[in-house]
Amino acid sequence: MLKPNMNYANLKDSYLFYNIAKKTEAYLSENVLVQKLIPLGIGDVSLPLCSAVVSALHSAVEDMANKESFQGYQDECGATFLREAIAAYYKKRGVALSCDEVFISSGASDELGDILDIFDRESSALVIEPAYPAYVDANIIAGRKIVHYFSDEKNGFAPYPNDDIKADIIYICSPNNPTGAVFTKEKLEKWVEFANKNGSVILFDAAYEAFIEDESIPHSIFEIDGARTCAIEICSLSKTAGFTGTRLGYTVIPRELERNSMNFNKMWVRNRTTKTNGVSYIIQKGAAAVFTDEGQKEIKENIAVYKSNARVLMDALDNAGIWYCGGKNAPYIWMKCPNNMLSWDFFDYLLENAQIIGTPGAGFGKNGDGYFRFTSFGDPEDTRKAAKRIEKLLMKGE
Amino acid sequence: MLKPNMNYANLKDSYLFYNIAKKTEAYLSENVLVQKLIPLGIGDVSLPLCSAVVSALHSAVEDMANKESFQGYQDECGATFLREAIAAYYKKRGVALSCDEVFISSGASDELGDILDIFDRESSALVIEPAYPAYVDANIIAGRKIVHYFSDEKNGFAPYPNDDIKADIIYICSPNNPTGAVFTKEKLEKWVEFANKNGSVILFDAAYEAFIEDESIPHSIFEIDGARTCAIEICSLSKTAGFTGTRLGYTVIPRELERNSMNFNKMWVRNRTTKTNGVSYIIQKGAAAVFTDEGQKEIKENIAVYKSNARVLMDALDNAGIWYCGGKNAPYIWMKCPNNMLSWDFFDYLLENAQIIGTPGAGFGKNGDGYFRFTSFGDPEDTRKAAKRIEKLLMKGE
Repeated sequence: MLKPNMNYANLKDSYLFYNIAKKTEAYLSENVLVQKLIPLGIGDVSLPLCSAVVSALHSAVEDMANKESFQGYQDECGATFLREAIAAYYKKRGVALSCDEVFISSGASDELGDILDIFDRESSALVIEPAYPAYVDANIIAGRKIVHYFSDEKNGFAPYPNDDIKADIIYICSPNNPTGAVFTKEKLEKWVEFANKNGSVILFDAAYEAFIEDESIPHSIFEIDGARTCAIEICSLSKTAGFTGTRLGYTVIPRELERNSMNFNKMWVRNRTTKTNGVSYIIQKGAAAVFTDEGQKEIKENIAVYKSNARVLMDALDNAGIWYCGGKNAPYIWMKCPNNMLSWDFFDYLLENAQIIGTPGAGFGKNGDGYFRFTSFGDPEDTRKAAKRIEKLLMKGE
Repeated sequence: MLKPNMNYANLKDSYLFYNIAKKTEAYLSENVLVQKLIPLGIGDVSLPLCSAVVSALHSAVEDMANKESFQGYQDECGATFLREAIAAYYKKRGVALSCDEVFISSGASDELGDILDIFDRESSALVIEPAYPAYVDANIIAGRKIVHYFSDEKNGFAPYPNDDIKADIIYICSPNNPTGAVFTKEKLEKWVEFANKNGSVILFDAAYEAFIEDESIPHSIFEIDGARTCAIEICSLSKTAGFTGTRLGYTVIPRELERNSMNFNKMWVRNRTTKTNGVSYIIQKGAAAVFTDEGQKEIKENIAVYKSNARVLMDALDNAGIWYCGGKNAPYIWMKCPNNMLSWDFFDYLLENAQIIGTPGAGFGKNGDGYFRFTSFGDPEDTRKAAKRIEKLLMKGE
């Protein structure tokens, strides 16, 4: 009798966005809306793809329509034109990568699950909570021990390592989802030092790097000396270029990264050539346009719109005297619920009194309770309205 | 110290297509070609995407270019419009599926690796060899025991099960890669009976179903009574609609499929929602066009071109008196090498004497040695030339 992977039975049902939808539905069925319901919950983008990407996608579709330019199987690790474009993007920030250290994926979420295949299942995974729930769930599925580590207001939601930690895989997400906090260069240096000392491997989730505006904050773990022997970086165009529904990410695995004489770059080549046939040529062509001068200019305009949304929300919280972090170098704002409310209670309060939907911090780990996440990816006009309502409600609440 | 997944060390280096490239390179550097070198090796398509798909792709790109129609995160298990189109496609052949039994993937090769995550690593996997090498490699990576089972000329390269087999996961590929053989309804009934009796699960690789012309051959394992409690079907548009570089596949997991009270359909939903953010909206829209009347008409015209290639090659082998199978219900022709040559020797012989590249059978498992695979996906004019050369060479050889 075939036995299932029984680790699935250890997963808690993930009700976060389901519960949000249910509560919203119930509210709408029982109430007549006096004003528009504004969603600032799910971190999905709202602006269309920029025109450089759109042109490249159309052109790639045309390539596929003609026998002479038609493209069959792509390199499983990624098309050279895109790997080169990404290596050049890193080079601008002073990070030298060779083309074969860059792997193209269908997105960071896909890769964060897939990459675990090259690690032993007896290894442990450290997750700094509050965190993107898939870090924990993907490791539960693999039967790994989870080491819970906590960020909080005191450490600015970006803690240092400490010598008591025993963990093989270390997740670091900076700028952070959900807190919007960033790890300084000095903090990342400590983590790299820790990982090299202990033989751990850092999985650095850089999905929000394009939102960093503070010059001193690293965009890549490979800006840190020593990272090439202890880190893998996973990135995505989802938030950088609005690819949430278009799907493309990339992963950097340095050639030097080895444990037990096994080379992780070579292992990943073998994984990709065995388990995939690469990412769609059309989408890779669209992605390459992001890294052109025109593409970079256009995506920065879009990011500026989201940053202006964040600013509007931050101003409202400032005016209401509410503690928050994020927003400046990240598309998320992480606020402390007023009057020590729990995060689901604040969800109800905000829905009932301001007709705004956000994400309760408890959905990102136990110690996220008491906090609340807003996204800056919404419609600008809606975000302005929401900010006014939030300010009014929370000032009144004091 | 993080331990790698040491199972990777048990993989044999896969040198099949690398060796083919090296040998070809060496031949070209040492010889002046008197005639064009014709590739009939790798199973990649040569005809462009059909116009229904091209239009749908352009239109989806336009959706992404405008704020009103822009698409963000898609359903991780697949867009409803595509899941419905595929369920309707099955219905035409009398297979009733509900929409949520159909999952959209980035392709069959991706899914064949990913799906193994829902099975225990102590389970064993039966591979009927010669076989697509990834069946074996993906299970070696997971540390599973491989049960080697053999097809041969006597069983028409499509064997029955036998009661001595002990295996939890059973791979069946019909029409088969590399042999082009098909499993009759009666043979599949025996495998389904075997799987249900033993609690095994069949992974049915239906990637070549669109090439079946014999009315009596099942296109889907779900045409067999009892399959809903013992099978998962993995399919792809790569060969059906020329999607090798565009990437899209689908997987059917019936609601009834359970072991140890764990439901595989629900487990896969959980896997997808944890480990992916779905397949590109653009590509899913293009794929949906394959299932329209216009799309079906156009892809059948393309398949007819490939089938005519197969016919030309089969006629040449018939005239030369060479044993082969496949070609009729499959895009591959599997020939016996003349004069008991080993398959790599025949590779050299064909390259040197006819300037044609094919795939040595030994690349698909030990018992594939002595056989040779031709693809019918080449250019029609090239294929006609190659067929003439093959016929001339092999008749002379006798």
